[in-house]
Amino acid sequence: MSLIVQKFGGSSVADAERVFNVANIVTDTYKAGNSVVVVVSAQGDTTDDLIAKAKEINESPSKREMDMLLSTGEQISISLLAMAIEKLGFPVVSLTGWQVGVHTDSNYSNSRIRKIDHERLQKELDKKNIVIVAGFQGINRYGDITTLGRGGSDTSAVALAAALHADLCEIYTDVDGVYTTDPRIVKNAAKLKEITFDEMLELASLGANVLHNRSVEMGKKYNVNMCVRSSLTRAEGTIVKEVVDMEKMMVRGIAKDSDVARISICGIEDTPGKAFRIFTLLAKKSINVDIILQSIGRDGKKDISFTVTETNLEEALRLLEENKDTIAYENLSWTKDVSKISIVGAGMVSNPGVAAKMFEALYEAQININMISTSEIKVSVLIDSALADKAVRVIHDKFDLA
Amino acid sequence: MSLIVQKFGGSSVADAERVFNVANIVTDTYKAGNSVVVVVSAQGDTTDDLIAKAKEINESPSKREMDMLLSTGEQISISLLAMAIEKLGFPVVSLTGWQVGVHTDSNYSNSRIRKIDHERLQKELDKKNIVIVAGFQGINRYGDITTLGRGGSDTSAVALAAALHADLCEIYTDVDGVYTTDPRIVKNAAKLKEITFDEMLELASLGANVLHNRSVEMGKKYNVNMCVRSSLTRAEGTIVKEVVDMEKMMVRGIAKDSDVARISICGIEDTPGKAFRIFTLLAKKSINVDIILQSIGRDGKKDISFTVTETNLEEALRLLEENKDTIAYENLSWTKDVSKISIVGAGMVSNPGVAAKMFEALYEAQININMISTSEIKVSVLIDSALADKAVRVIHDKFDLA
Repeated sequence: MSLIVQKFGGSSVADAERVFNVANIVTDTYKAGNSVVVVVSAQGDTTDDLIAKAKEINESPSKREMDMLLSTGEQISISLLAMAIEKLGFPVVSLTGWQVGVHTDSNYSNSRIRKIDHERLQKELDKKNIVIVAGFQGINRYGDITTLGRGGSDTSAVALAAALHADLCEIYTDVDGVYTTDPRIVKNAAKLKEITFDEMLELASLGANVLHNRSVEMGKKYNVNMCVRSSLTRAEGTIVKEVVDMEKMMVRGIAKDSDVARISICGIEDTPGKAFRIFTLLAKKSINVDIILQSIGRDGKKDISFTVTETNLEEALRLLEENKDTIAYENLSWTKDVSKISIVGAGMVSNPGVAAKMFEALYEAQININMISTSEIKVSVLIDSALADKAVRVIHDKFDLA
Repeated sequence: MSLIVQKFGGSSVADAERVFNVANIVTDTYKAGNSVVVVVSAQGDTTDDLIAKAKEINESPSKREMDMLLSTGEQISISLLAMAIEKLGFPVVSLTGWQVGVHTDSNYSNSRIRKIDHERLQKELDKKNIVIVAGFQGINRYGDITTLGRGGSDTSAVALAAALHADLCEIYTDVDGVYTTDPRIVKNAAKLKEITFDEMLELASLGANVLHNRSVEMGKKYNVNMCVRSSLTRAEGTIVKEVVDMEKMMVRGIAKDSDVARISICGIEDTPGKAFRIFTLLAKKSINVDIILQSIGRDGKKDISFTVTETNLEEALRLLEENKDTIAYENLSWTKDVSKISIVGAGMVSNPGVAAKMFEALYEAQININMISTSEIKVSVLIDSALADKAVRVIHDKFDLA
């Protein structure tokens, strides 16, 4: 007998029919002799509807009250799923975040889980109940309801799996696993059987929206066996774990990220402390900088280019303009017409030819590279957005990922 | 400085505009230097919508899961009202039933409040916060969410007022007070300035749907100063308290109850134990019997008539028919075409002429009385339904209640 945590997103429980689809998956797992803990998100558009209700009354409500409001979404879905499972004739109980004992910090609307007091949950499992848990929510030291922010339900599921030492944490989504690249771009993209946490992290942060980074980080930290699969096809998904057979495939997947803007600061005086000053300025406003490229100084001047997300572009430019005198640069340029293409694979570090092979594919397709960034398991290039899909295809072919 | 508990029903917070209307009443009370605790019900049709969602999945869900679902309705309204009050620039915090510490028994969907641990609430009041509390809900010894059943939010408000030793508990409804009778029947019905708990109890149980009985009983038990008023007109309402000036008005109000059916069991053997047998039979099935009339035995036979609510009629008849042999009666007759008209007033007991005056009014209008029932503060008569409104009018005139 295994203990399995299953997580279902909002679209998986959007209406009565889908709720029963989930109820069937859950009860099939239970019938197979497993203990089952189910984490559910709010139904379909519930969260958006609640946000609209709030905005009608107050454009900028306190985050505490917003969490009080939004947490009802998951509370509705857990009770409905429990009712569906009751209807199928199985013992079930639903629990909210505070009932489960998901303790978080007090950073309303974007809380971090501190610990899980799973006494109540364990008691329900001992009684042979299927336990339905509200994802995305917790309780802080003041006894107030908090929410975990984007990807919160994934994080709830993985945290519960870690706390309960579950044998497996299944994340059900509307895709049936992790692919070598976006199947909408490359038709013969292949589904991966396995992937490491690190690779998953790189792919997630690069725009392969399957699992939220926070949940993967937590999975890695507590070594939770995770699995991504579809609630509709029930096909075998992709296992996410610490180590996979690295020899077999150096490049695991290719990701495209179009939410990228490049800023270039030109004619900066070539003295120490410039980069420090620029990036501290941006960090203070929580603007995340991705690829950074600094030219070699020439004639006492240098250039610094870097990328930010498109939503952060405007504020980054404003900050840089306001501080033109302190930074002391000549001019500022920027573009949104760039995309980041990345190859990810844990085996890459020991295979020096990988980056070169990627560049070769791009050269053959006459695609110009703007910027390059590398990590132990990733090579990213910044290219013209118009050529992004083509780039993904030629690299996919080059590495024979189909 | 006073501590005031204000309760607003679902229609008072049905949309954004009404939420702001309530926010204005609350903040005006706060601005006047009072500490304010606000109890809110679920918005307009929210509860019905949630019930419909549940029924789509399971016709008879467990009451525990139903309470889990329905309690989200009040959680939504408290957060929205808090956001409106934030918008008006006042310090506010919303609290659910479990956060307030409303401890109940485990009779899901119809729980009774056991005690209120108001430590958190008091702490918020000490911080000069306006406190918005979710009505209708509590928590049981297992840490599960419970709901209080019909009239639950009124009960929450009165219980909180009692626990906090509030100076006043204002119940805001869509009527602006308690009237001498239904203003839809008698145009010149007068609004009462004051009424006793006992009178209010009799009026509530007789169909004057202003306050739920449970809340009035609790108000009486803990001697809470209560007040019924309208959230729309803000007019001075009706004070409900332990003692009012009894000399001033013997008859406080007139109530009509049309949800009445009369059953007559004729030709029962005139031996001891018959009434016991009949009413035990009905009590076992939770069928409430109201007026009972037993004829004097004649020729070794007697008749027993009594009233039940119309919803209970069918089951009562079935029970009596099934037990015809044990009860040993000749025949059964029944009618739904009856209404109960009652006059209520705490001063009645010391004024023997009151009942006679009521009967005189009915005689003058040629209205026949079927059955009569009296208590210390009430006289009820059963009459033909078609004449019920007329009866209310002539009695109202007779006692000069306008």
